[in-house]
Amino acid sequence: MRENPGSQASQIHGEVLEAEKRCRPFIRKTPVEYSHDLSRIGTCGVHLKLESSQITGSFKIRGAANKILSLTEEERNRGIVTASSGNHGAAVAYMMKALGCGGAIILPKTASGVKIDALRRMGTPVEIFGDDCVEAEAFAREKAEKHGMVYVSPYNDIKIIGGQGTVAKELAEQVKAIDSVLVPVGGGGLISGVGGYLKALDPSIDVIGCQPQNSAVMFHSIRAGKILEMESLPTLSDGTAGGIEQGSLTFGFCKALVDDFILVGEEAIKEAVKRTLAVHHILVEGAAALTIAAFIKESHRFQNKAVALVISGSKIALETLKSILCNSGG
Amino acid sequence: MRENPGSQASQIHGEVLEAEKRCRPFIRKTPVEYSHDLSRIGTCGVHLKLESSQITGSFKIRGAANKILSLTEEERNRGIVTASSGNHGAAVAYMMKALGCGGAIILPKTASGVKIDALRRMGTPVEIFGDDCVEAEAFAREKAEKHGMVYVSPYNDIKIIGGQGTVAKELAEQVKAIDSVLVPVGGGGLISGVGGYLKALDPSIDVIGCQPQNSAVMFHSIRAGKILEMESLPTLSDGTAGGIEQGSLTFGFCKALVDDFILVGEEAIKEAVKRTLAVHHILVEGAAALTIAAFIKESHRFQNKAVALVISGSKIALETLKSILCNSGG
Repeated sequence: MRENPGSQASQIHGEVLEAEKRCRPFIRKTPVEYSHDLSRIGTCGVHLKLESSQITGSFKIRGAANKILSLTEEERNRGIVTASSGNHGAAVAYMMKALGCGGAIILPKTASGVKIDALRRMGTPVEIFGDDCVEAEAFAREKAEKHGMVYVSPYNDIKIIGGQGTVAKELAEQVKAIDSVLVPVGGGGLISGVGGYLKALDPSIDVIGCQPQNSAVMFHSIRAGKILEMESLPTLSDGTAGGIEQGSLTFGFCKALVDDFILVGEEAIKEAVKRTLAVHHILVEGAAALTIAAFIKESHRFQNKAVALVISGSKIALETLKSILCNSGG
Repeated sequence: MRENPGSQASQIHGEVLEAEKRCRPFIRKTPVEYSHDLSRIGTCGVHLKLESSQITGSFKIRGAANKILSLTEEERNRGIVTASSGNHGAAVAYMMKALGCGGAIILPKTASGVKIDALRRMGTPVEIFGDDCVEAEAFAREKAEKHGMVYVSPYNDIKIIGGQGTVAKELAEQVKAIDSVLVPVGGGGLISGVGGYLKALDPSIDVIGCQPQNSAVMFHSIRAGKILEMESLPTLSDGTAGGIEQGSLTFGFCKALVDDFILVGEEAIKEAVKRTLAVHHILVEGAAALTIAAFIKESHRFQNKAVALVISGSKIALETLKSILCNSGG
């Protein structure tokens, strides 16, 4: 499925090294935990890269920090706009507060009160607009253009991708001789950064994208050779759900850098969330559970290998967690 | 309630500095997270010291590492024995594996299969003996004496206390000018280490012990002026439950170093576990929730202060978590 990764990998490698210097004071070096449980299942060595312990609860702070720190002071003074109610929004809000930037996070009317409260509690300027994420995003882009503000995309930006790739720089220092890395894929920013950095170090590292069957737009788009507009079904992996912007940089990077995809069902995501709580006592959100579910589904592939699973974040809603833990027979 | 802390604090301060040098390669510097939520409740600044992200899931690795690394090679070669099915046992098992020490973790017949499996998965030698923890502990001590092995106490050992105190060394570097620190108390090892280190830096720092009403042996013992033998009721804070060994070092340290205690009920512990999941997306065990519950109970005391809550660990059993999340109306 993969094109020649050479030039993309080296471009991303360079971006990651720059991002590392820029972002370090704002991001945590997250721990890696060896999973005796998963290692036994696959007769291999499984290492969990715990972005669930990252500041703001997910890897998204890495990209947001890199993007915002790459702006000139004048650009930052004009203000920052984005349109995410999820991890990207929280990360941008954190950086706005840390750097004292103005601007706004635009949320649709449908955004949950809990998320709006969490942002406002941090002192983030929140504006409510539109009936869904698409309308909120369009409004955010318009607002940015109208006022000369900077719109911060959640994935379609080389600075975002470079920032996310700092996960891989840490990982490569923490785990020697990785054979395979499993990464959650939504818009593709994280896997572009991680895959590019690792392929530049060693092109033989297997980079595997993990998506929910209910919303596997990148997988289907790469198969089709173009970015598809397709409906997604509901998924517990809300962090990766939804479509990809036409013309997104990440599409080309994923074509070049991703060796394979593993798609997982909703039951498998639930089981992975539960297992990670029970065995590792680590809270993971649906998107983070994708790599665990994918590893369990295809564990036979990894025999005797050193495998890294990127655990992308911890921000699962309490109601979702209850629905996973409380309504099951087991 | 407090005696002159001077000499005890300086003794512990010295032990902590030595422990820091010895243990650092084996322990994580855990993050501190600012809680906008709790800060708003108390009109103050609340910082969470997240030992829930520590290796083995709790602060206990700090004491275990310091104790075991303090032994001579010859002592280590004779083997290590302890008798805990909880965080202390997991920490000792981790260090035994890391250093290649022999020995055994003794567990009573009543220990849960999940915990035994988790230890065996790590390759830990586990021996099952006795009908409860008291019998298992007595057997462990006998075994150590008979074979010249080292019995590792969970709290009654200056090296354990010094190791636990490294939490405070990190904390003092991470949060400037702490006014009050809240610490879970069971046997008293953690608060002795943390309280001693912080009082040596600044005797005006308020050191507050947190215990469940259902098992507040240290609190009642200090009130009585002697270590009491008293029955405990069941508590979600299993990590702090139970009695204190007669003659324990920690009794004297707590008398000298702890300014006050806050006791909390089981409902408040449940609410604190739930709130920490919902707001911070952090999984905490019952013992770790004590400081959050205690802060909420007495938040009026902390107005305009810089408060640190030690969040001692994450290892809550899945069944316990379910009982907290699933059986409530809210």
